[in-house]
Amino acid sequence: MTGPDTHAVKQFLLALQTNICAELEQLDGEASFKAESWQRAEGGGGTSRVLTQGKLFEQAGVNFSHVKGAAMPASATAHRPELAGRSFEAMGVSLVIHPNNPYIPTTHANVRFFIASKEGADPVWWFGGGFDLTPYYPFKEDVLSWHQTAADLCAPFGEEVYPKYKKWCDDYFFLPHRNETRGVGGLFFDDLNQAGFEQSFAFMRAVGEGFIQAYAPIVERRKALSFGEHERQFQLYRRGRYVEFNLVYDRGTLFGLQTGGRTESILMSMPPLVRWEYGFTPAAGSVEAELYEVYLKPQDWLQQA
Amino acid sequence: MTGPDTHAVKQFLLALQTNICAELEQLDGEASFKAESWQRAEGGGGTSRVLTQGKLFEQAGVNFSHVKGAAMPASATAHRPELAGRSFEAMGVSLVIHPNNPYIPTTHANVRFFIASKEGADPVWWFGGGFDLTPYYPFKEDVLSWHQTAADLCAPFGEEVYPKYKKWCDDYFFLPHRNETRGVGGLFFDDLNQAGFEQSFAFMRAVGEGFIQAYAPIVERRKALSFGEHERQFQLYRRGRYVEFNLVYDRGTLFGLQTGGRTESILMSMPPLVRWEYGFTPAAGSVEAELYEVYLKPQDWLQQA
Repeated sequence: MTGPDTHAVKQFLLALQTNICAELEQLDGEASFKAESWQRAEGGGGTSRVLTQGKLFEQAGVNFSHVKGAAMPASATAHRPELAGRSFEAMGVSLVIHPNNPYIPTTHANVRFFIASKEGADPVWWFGGGFDLTPYYPFKEDVLSWHQTAADLCAPFGEEVYPKYKKWCDDYFFLPHRNETRGVGGLFFDDLNQAGFEQSFAFMRAVGEGFIQAYAPIVERRKALSFGEHERQFQLYRRGRYVEFNLVYDRGTLFGLQTGGRTESILMSMPPLVRWEYGFTPAAGSVEAELYEVYLKPQDWLQQA
Repeated sequence: MTGPDTHAVKQFLLALQTNICAELEQLDGEASFKAESWQRAEGGGGTSRVLTQGKLFEQAGVNFSHVKGAAMPASATAHRPELAGRSFEAMGVSLVIHPNNPYIPTTHANVRFFIASKEGADPVWWFGGGFDLTPYYPFKEDVLSWHQTAADLCAPFGEEVYPKYKKWCDDYFFLPHRNETRGVGGLFFDDLNQAGFEQSFAFMRAVGEGFIQAYAPIVERRKALSFGEHERQFQLYRRGRYVEFNLVYDRGTLFGLQTGGRTESILMSMPPLVRWEYGFTPAAGSVEAELYEVYLKPQDWLQQA
């Protein structure tokens, strides 16, 4: 196993943040990102870039962070006890996009790199990341193109890669208390190092760069669709599920909040406006009901292509 | 220690739910509660009463539940390992009120009774509960009357009772990631059984009945105040903190969601409309800034009366 080139990873992540922001600004056509850099008392810091009240994007947040700590947090070593007590370094790009138009899905992407070190021992490092799509009014064409892009970027790394990370994504972005997936999934991977640094880094790059290739065509196809108050209200209601997932289950969010992360950057993922409604169920036979019945459960989309 | 009269507790709780709903309907003057009963697969059930789009109350939910299980959940026995493996019975009334007018505070109250049983051993039982107030535009008069009512109902049970449960409330309803209390507090108690069943039950009744006496005068004093879009937007923003607390920290919410409770009843506490805004801070010297600087930290209010 070759040693990790931390500097190269960081350069990639910073460029990825810049490139994704530029692509999103171009898609939006009106608003631009504002950047804010911050330091973390325990070590490291980051830059948060946020676009608000755009023509297409009600809010888009693209966060870079690089944090260091003297000891791995307990929550991060629960399933890897051999790492307890090591110092750590974590860097990543994380983004969440909340469009205005309910026909454009919400999306999330993340790529991250972790190193746990101690004197007199080789560093332990791994990559993680993925991207997932949360439509309100899904189009099968969009779901298929999203997953096809995911499958295509995985293909050079082995035929088992897409099915494995697609399933991990379905399993991870699941709300047990609603018995719903958060959306139509995508890719999720973690603990990636088995193939060595070069190959693992190459896969992380493919995921990071693949995100905008998967998302931009969907935005282009749906941005001109007109919608009314009914669709807007359903979007606001469904955004509540996003909040529920992120605050109750999402490991990254909880880890960040409970370890003194920068709250405003972590909660950039919260939708700008959200609605809850006691006892809401979509009308039988409606397009809203179809979301629940067809799209909010794991499916082998590419078998249907 | 006298044995617990479960039937009497249940009758009290059902009457309390009815009485509080009637008082809230009278306060609102327009809307009325709709009731929905539900069964729980593992045993027991409940009745949820919800008032929506009232004249004063955007949403008010008052929930009664009585659930049973064959084995205490692990999360409930973590700090009382001697109860592991016992069967349990839990009953309670829980309510959350989200007013329209930002000058009327949001509030939450809960009273509950728990019994853990096993064959050949005395049942272990205890009471818990409390109430707390979350103003957006606080009036000191309201905070003082709220705490005075709390102190008065505690007084017959000992002079240490109010300070103890007032502090517990401040400690419990705290958002570490914001370094803010959820509001101006009130009372919080748990594991109450030391004084025997009669006295413990009497205290729980005093808290349950004291809630509306503490809240109604505040509603009456503020309901006619006119407000504008600025105050409404700040209220929606601050409601985000309520969501953050309930989904990230509130034990009852997480326990319910993770043990197959009725999701719609548990999440009755979610505000009907909520806003997040990246990087928001109130203008220096504004009344909004005063909320943060004066009211969202623990204070000995009655010393200031």
